[in-house]
Amino acid sequence: MNPVEERVTRSFRSQGLMATLGAELALVASGEVRIAVPFSTHLSQQHGYVHAGAITSVVDSACGYAALTVAPPDCDVVTAEFKINFLRPAIGDRFLAIGKVENAGKLLTVCSGEVRAFAGSSYKVIAIMQATIVNVRA
Amino acid sequence: MNPVEERVTRSFRSQGLMATLGAELALVASGEVRIAVPFSTHLSQQHGYVHAGAITSVVDSACGYAALTVAPPDCDVVTAEFKINFLRPAIGDRFLAIGKVENAGKLLTVCSGEVRAFAGSSYKVIAIMQATIVNVRA
Amino acid sequence: MNPVEERVTRSFRSQGLMATLGAELALVASGEVRIAVPFSTHLSQQHGYVHAGAITSVVDSACGYAALTVAPPDCDVVTAEFKINFLRPAIGDRFLAIGKVENAGKLLTVCSGEVRAFAGSSYKVIAIMQATIVNVRA
Amino acid sequence: MNPVEERVTRSFRSQGLMATLGAELALVASGEVRIAVPFSTHLSQQHGYVHAGAITSVVDSACGYAALTVAPPDCDVVTAEFKINFLRPAIGDRFLAIGKVENAGKLLTVCSGEVRAFAGSSYKVIAIMQATIVNVRA
Repeated sequence: MNPVEERVTRSFRSQGLMATLGAELALVASGEVRIAVPFSTHLSQQHGYVHAGAITSVVDSACGYAALTVAPPDCDVVTAEFKINFLRPAIGDRFLAIGKVENAGKLLTVCSGEVRAFAGSSYKVIAIMQATIVNVRA
Repeated sequence: MNPVEERVTRSFRSQGLMATLGAELALVASGEVRIAVPFSTHLSQQHGYVHAGAITSVVDSACGYAALTVAPPDCDVVTAEFKINFLRPAIGDRFLAIGKVENAGKLLTVCSGEVRAFAGSSYKVIAIMQATIVNVRA
Repeated sequence: MNPVEERVTRSFRSQGLMATLGAELALVASGEVRIAVPFSTHLSQQHGYVHAGAITSVVDSACGYAALTVAPPDCDVVTAEFKINFLRPAIGDRFLAIGKVENAGKLLTVCSGEVRAFAGSSYKVIAIMQATIVNVRA
Repeated sequence: MNPVEERVTRSFRSQGLMATLGAELALVASGEVRIAVPFSTHLSQQHGYVHAGAITSVVDSACGYAALTVAPPDCDVVTAEFKINFLRPAIGDRFLAIGKVENAGKLLTVCSGEVRAFAGSSYKVIAIMQATIVNVRA
């Protein structure tokens, strides 16, 4: 692992919520991070699909870590805000959240996020996010 | 319990994610729902505070259920989208998410959300949300 | 006028767009700014009501100036992002946009905005905004 | 012009605000609409750049008309809400707003928007939008 992968991986593993959700890092590249989460009833909403909050949690993390891959080495990142649209119910056997850096300023990084719901090897995009992340001195 | 409280309570209890997060209904009134969640390390982010995703999940549910309290009896509700700003780190021993209806149209309900972090009996607002919820025929 | 009112007023008057829209400052107080705009056909959308973009422009300015009233004296402000919900059509003879500071951090100020459409002396809220404004060294 | 182009063009020309801003339709295709606006001092903010509100107005219109290109023939569209991030100051001699349909449901259409600032033939993306548009019976 290169230093950025190491940094993201170490931080990810220290997030209690990601373990609680059963989420795993699927890709760490410069400006892009992917997080996978399998379907589980303990993530459900009232109809048995995955709760929007669980979907949001993993794509928020994917965006935050994407921002971290381009942050100055002496900075940590904090999510200032995000907006998410849910395009269809979160039905699938696994989900992949993709966070990508759209613009990295000195202070603020803007990311876009996407969540894919897989049934076997085909997928549908179920949510899209636009997020603002702040660099803070660690 | 009146029919609306019953409806919200029954739906809330069928959400696997709310149980996983340790969240509980604190208030169900017409146009306002409150959900409480105690601090737990299994909700943490990398610094040990509560993860933005967990905070978001409970206030999303509070807004959705607030919308449900004013929805036509034959309609269920689905979150179309929301936006959330995080004002300060989620540090506290318990958290209270408040969802309120700002405007209820025939089709769309707009809610505002707020999350309070408590240290003993005093609190700080740590996040504010603006959400759009759709009425769908059940 | 106190120094903050002066600063906001001077900046407002240098905005070509506010003059183009026919907008005027209605209040400058610490943490709150109000901007009024009368109905005009040159602001219309296809049905003859005021265009969402015109409504958004004035409430964006109201939020930005509200943030400026609490910014350090050596800082200017820039809107990083906002989200706006349109609750009903912009029908009225005049409109009042209100921007309020919800939280002022060292770097980021979070504001809420509201737009009221007046028919005579009664009004309806037609839009609500949540905005993030950055302090930048002038 | 095909019927969709005709419909969008007719609606666009009836928007007083688009004429006020000096905006023009640059492309109408199924699922994508582009609107161009030249720099003008009557659109400026306090530093002489184009005001965020003017930028927002044209990309909001581009998203709304993109949604209209895929709406049922008996439906009009209304913007329910949007969120926009400003990536850098609106400096340029002309601006191009692009609205694209990300997902078209029966009731709600989700669009993404982008605004490019041109200096000669090269451009920078200065803003990105995520918008929710509602189909309403005309």
